[in-house]
Amino acid sequence: MELARYKVILAYDGSTFSGLQRQAEGRSVQGVVEAALRPLGWQGKSILAAGRTDAGVHASGQVIAFDLAWRDSPAALLKALNAGLPASVAAREVSAAPVDFHPRYAAKLRGYEYRLFCQPERDPLRERYAWRAWPPVKLSRLRSAARALRGEHDFAAFGSPPKKGGSTVRKVRRASWRKEGEDEFVFTIKASGFLYHMVRKMVGLQVKVGQGALEPESVGQALGGGNKVRQLAPPQGLCLVAVEY
Amino acid sequence: MELARYKVILAYDGSTFSGLQRQAEGRSVQGVVEAALRPLGWQGKSILAAGRTDAGVHASGQVIAFDLAWRDSPAALLKALNAGLPASVAAREVSAAPVDFHPRYAAKLRGYEYRLFCQPERDPLRERYAWRAWPPVKLSRLRSAARALRGEHDFAAFGSPPKKGGSTVRKVRRASWRKEGEDEFVFTIKASGFLYHMVRKMVGLQVKVGQGALEPESVGQALGGGNKVRQLAPPQGLCLVAVEY
Repeated sequence: MELARYKVILAYDGSTFSGLQRQAEGRSVQGVVEAALRPLGWQGKSILAAGRTDAGVHASGQVIAFDLAWRDSPAALLKALNAGLPASVAAREVSAAPVDFHPRYAAKLRGYEYRLFCQPERDPLRERYAWRAWPPVKLSRLRSAARALRGEHDFAAFGSPPKKGGSTVRKVRRASWRKEGEDEFVFTIKASGFLYHMVRKMVGLQVKVGQGALEPESVGQALGGGNKVRQLAPPQGLCLVAVEY
Repeated sequence: MELARYKVILAYDGSTFSGLQRQAEGRSVQGVVEAALRPLGWQGKSILAAGRTDAGVHASGQVIAFDLAWRDSPAALLKALNAGLPASVAAREVSAAPVDFHPRYAAKLRGYEYRLFCQPERDPLRERYAWRAWPPVKLSRLRSAARALRGEHDFAAFGSPPKKGGSTVRKVRRASWRKEGEDEFVFTIKASGFLYHMVRKMVGLQVKVGQGALEPESVGQALGGGNKVRQLAPPQGLCLVAVEY
């Protein structure tokens, strides 16, 4: 039985995890996936993943890969993997991949969504997957702010690169806001790569603009080598929705 | 300082509660609300509530009432109460009520929603607030089933009355299904009162019809003194959305 590489689309509720990546302390998504793989014969050191999500950040389209000697179909592997995973994590799709497929290096685009709602009081049924922002935001102001983020810029003010001293230039393919229902706002962003905390700082700054506390021009000023953005939106509104190859 | 009665619209995530009502074991919504009221001077034995929700059932519009000597405004009481409640429970509105207002006896209509989605595999980001039903349902069949539920019927097959030997006749004012997005279905029901487990059994039976395992006529048969409905939809899809007075 030879090892073959498998690509898995993974969804998880990040609320109870210390993040994707296995760490010295805390329960990681990687840790529970690896624990579910071992009874299936997996003997690797570490699974591969497209993106590292922070503590509390969710995913509906994370991509992971690993090598496994598996006699049955990918569909049967999906069932077997899900049977070993906790309710907060699930494989959505399993497919065979080329032996050298690396979900991080091969990724062309990553897509995130950030959801918020505007209410003066707490809402227990929405705050697990959205940020409650108050005072309320104006959609037109959010959209003005988002326009400035599109294209290739130095995003140094919005976060630090994965490797110290690495480039902080990124190309944003899409950055847009839509309104849902009475009071929900969803930010969609796509880029080849992201700096650490980049989406959450983008949202934090845009919400200040949306609330009228800052002008839309402050986004352009931050991009033009301005001061570090201090506004960090909380993790529970963020979801890694897709990785494109 | 005299006692005055307050009416509070309450929202909660029922996932981590043993239900609304205080019991010998488990953490109840009533318990945490009473614990939040005591530091505000509340000395009652028990708060009043419009409806008893089961373990795991959510609410966005539960109504409770209690007597309190409170010097400030209802708006200030809302803030104070929310400060003492856990993240899973929140007061949405607080208002002064007549001294004899009883949220259960005064209720004219109660409205519930039940949400489900159809997917063959687990979805960690939706299963906290919806039931994953598989095989898939057909909206037209759900709607045929719901039609039979409307009006005044003996619902004995759908649950037991709050008091043993009590009437099992209820008048359903609204029972309808809508589709949301790709694969979500929401059942909305309004009635003056409900039997124990009534909504969850209605959904359980209708889903069997929607999946094609039973014919729409089976709903009418159950109403006409038929066998007890065995299909009990799980609690997490259910939400008490409103109580009308």
